[in-house]
Amino acid sequence: MSIPKTMKAAILVEQHKPLVVDEVELPSSLDVGQVLVKVHYSGICGSQIGEIDGAKGEDKFLPHLLGHEASGSVVATGPGVKHVKEGDTVVMHWRKGLGIEGAPPQYRWRGQKLNAGWIATFNEYAIVAENRLTSIPTDSNLQVAALFGCAVTTGFGVIENNAKVRIGESVVVFGAGGVGLNIVQAAALVGAYPVIAVDVFDNRLALAKEMGATHCINAKTQDAQKAIEAIVGNQGLDVFIDNTGQPTIMELGYQITKAQGRVTLVGVPRKGNNIGIFSLPLHFGKVLSGSHGGESVPHEDIPRYQNLFNAGRIKLNELLTEVLPLDDINTAIDHMRSGQASGRCLIRMD
Amino acid sequence: MSIPKTMKAAILVEQHKPLVVDEVELPSSLDVGQVLVKVHYSGICGSQIGEIDGAKGEDKFLPHLLGHEASGSVVATGPGVKHVKEGDTVVMHWRKGLGIEGAPPQYRWRGQKLNAGWIATFNEYAIVAENRLTSIPTDSNLQVAALFGCAVTTGFGVIENNAKVRIGESVVVFGAGGVGLNIVQAAALVGAYPVIAVDVFDNRLALAKEMGATHCINAKTQDAQKAIEAIVGNQGLDVFIDNTGQPTIMELGYQITKAQGRVTLVGVPRKGNNIGIFSLPLHFGKVLSGSHGGESVPHEDIPRYQNLFNAGRIKLNELLTEVLPLDDINTAIDHMRSGQASGRCLIRMD
Ligand SMILES: [Zn+2]
Ligand SMILES: [Zn+2]
Repeated sequence: MSIPKTMKAAILVEQHKPLVVDEVELPSSLDVGQVLVKVHYSGICGSQIGEIDGAKGEDKFLPHLLGHEASGSVVATGPGVKHVKEGDTVVMHWRKGLGIEGAPPQYRWRGQKLNAGWIATFNEYAIVAENRLTSIPTDSNLQVAALFGCAVTTGFGVIENNAKVRIGESVVVFGAGGVGLNIVQAAALVGAYPVIAVDVFDNRLALAKEMGATHCINAKTQDAQKAIEAIVGNQGLDVFIDNTGQPTIMELGYQITKAQGRVTLVGVPRKGNNIGIFSLPLHFGKVLSGSHGGESVPHEDIPRYQNLFNAGRIKLNELLTEVLPLDDINTAIDHMRSGQASGRCLIRMD
Repeated sequence: MSIPKTMKAAILVEQHKPLVVDEVELPSSLDVGQVLVKVHYSGICGSQIGEIDGAKGEDKFLPHLLGHEASGSVVATGPGVKHVKEGDTVVMHWRKGLGIEGAPPQYRWRGQKLNAGWIATFNEYAIVAENRLTSIPTDSNLQVAALFGCAVTTGFGVIENNAKVRIGESVVVFGAGGVGLNIVQAAALVGAYPVIAVDVFDNRLALAKEMGATHCINAKTQDAQKAIEAIVGNQGLDVFIDNTGQPTIMELGYQITKAQGRVTLVGVPRKGNNIGIFSLPLHFGKVLSGSHGGESVPHEDIPRYQNLFNAGRIKLNELLTEVLPLDDINTAIDHMRSGQASGRCLIRMD
């Protein structure tokens, strides 16, 4: 099949502004290691909100496409591609899996170059690097499959690979968005107790409870530190997972974990947002580390997690709060920002 | 053999004051897991200087004995002791090895209780916990053996267990005292390159060169950051090891290591000396961690290192700068503080 000449896509044209949904041009051929995918559903992740809001400072790649978790179908493959084939149902993920890291595609918009990385998913089609795709059974739930691109693999990986939570350890998950809710679920899954979710939105906390949180704290109406200390008691807190990137919250985690506790940073800080810590506890077993997508290995992790889902052992449908068409992507983003969306908002490509 | 009624010991009576060398009383019997050792040589470590200088704040255990690396001979063993026996030559170490953690001894001085932990070595005899002793061959060099109690095992452990230095990695060792010099030696031993020693004393840097440093920087006369960057060039710095506990130096290490570099903190910070860091690099592979005695396992590590010494593959005699009697311990401490002592000062118990 040939590559469509144009497609609809959501473009980040300017920081702090709504995305522009418009027609963009695709290149006429696929390069080595590139794969053309028809996108079905894409999740919206906190990272994209950070990109829009300029969390990392100036963006030198504007205008560009964005989005990094989705489900899709392979339409065509470029030279050298071996791990996916035409007709495959795939998870589109930003972490590297098997195969070639094909070059980013050369899209164009209104006569100018339109940047995109190895993956972009807020668009009807996507030319992505082979190693950003993992094939899954064709009868997979395509909405849930999108979550395997980031929310699930990151969340579960944080528990398995970063915090390395052990049976009966106490865990605080500060920030219960799409990734945070999966962290809560994974913590419960590996036998952590208590699993304490903290957020400022009651609807998210209700969902966190459904995902396995044993205790919920609304940091807007309660003193989070006191509430956590009351729950964990004298044994102290083993693991604090921050999804906010806020210095005061990261510092709180460093302070309230027990002597040999772990602080795992998942939410990334805005540029210039430094934290102040007293390093002595690091000598005595306290661990402060950052997560990069839960260090997940997509082609190994997605099949494991999908088995669990198929067996009814994990909840993912519950995380799908809203499904909107690409034209309404800015509405979906607003719902995430305002906290109105408890779980993940999916974008549907018709 | 019976326990002597009294012995000479150096006592920390008051912070910021010289140690008081005086006769102290020993208890009349050994408890479960306790061992009576005749101390031969004891090293003086930065930790004891920190104790004298009140680095951790107020000291609730005054008056007390101190010292945590030494060589000695076992005079008698308490009930349950299995891993050492009368007549054994032993390394006295503060990290835990094999056997029982016998209770700290009940010494008395001038009619009052004199505190001591599981080990104290600035005294002619010592009642120590069995698990603070590791037997070595009776023909061992007793001066060098003292260094196995901390300087060598910590220094080598920092490279093996904390920084996990790999062949050809670049390493900065900031602070070239007794532990720092052994870190330099261990880095050279495992094939690191360059091995850059930084200190403010030229005599220590000369010794660092002898121990295997490929480059030396005097931070008093040179801009350490610029000098390091000039040496490592575009490849960046893999490993920064801080032995100073100074916030500006720890922050420098965090700043100048490459994206996936490691900062290993060995020197402990004074109370209240916080560091400020931008946590984002922690998500992308930078590692900030603290060492606790190089995480060394004395009964496993000491035999390995002693083999190397016997085979002439590591330099330890070179680290012995000065050997003074217990009566002159405050002079030895002054020589370490002023930098006059390039390597380790040993205290000799006659
Ligand atoms: Zn994401
Ligand atoms: Zn020491």
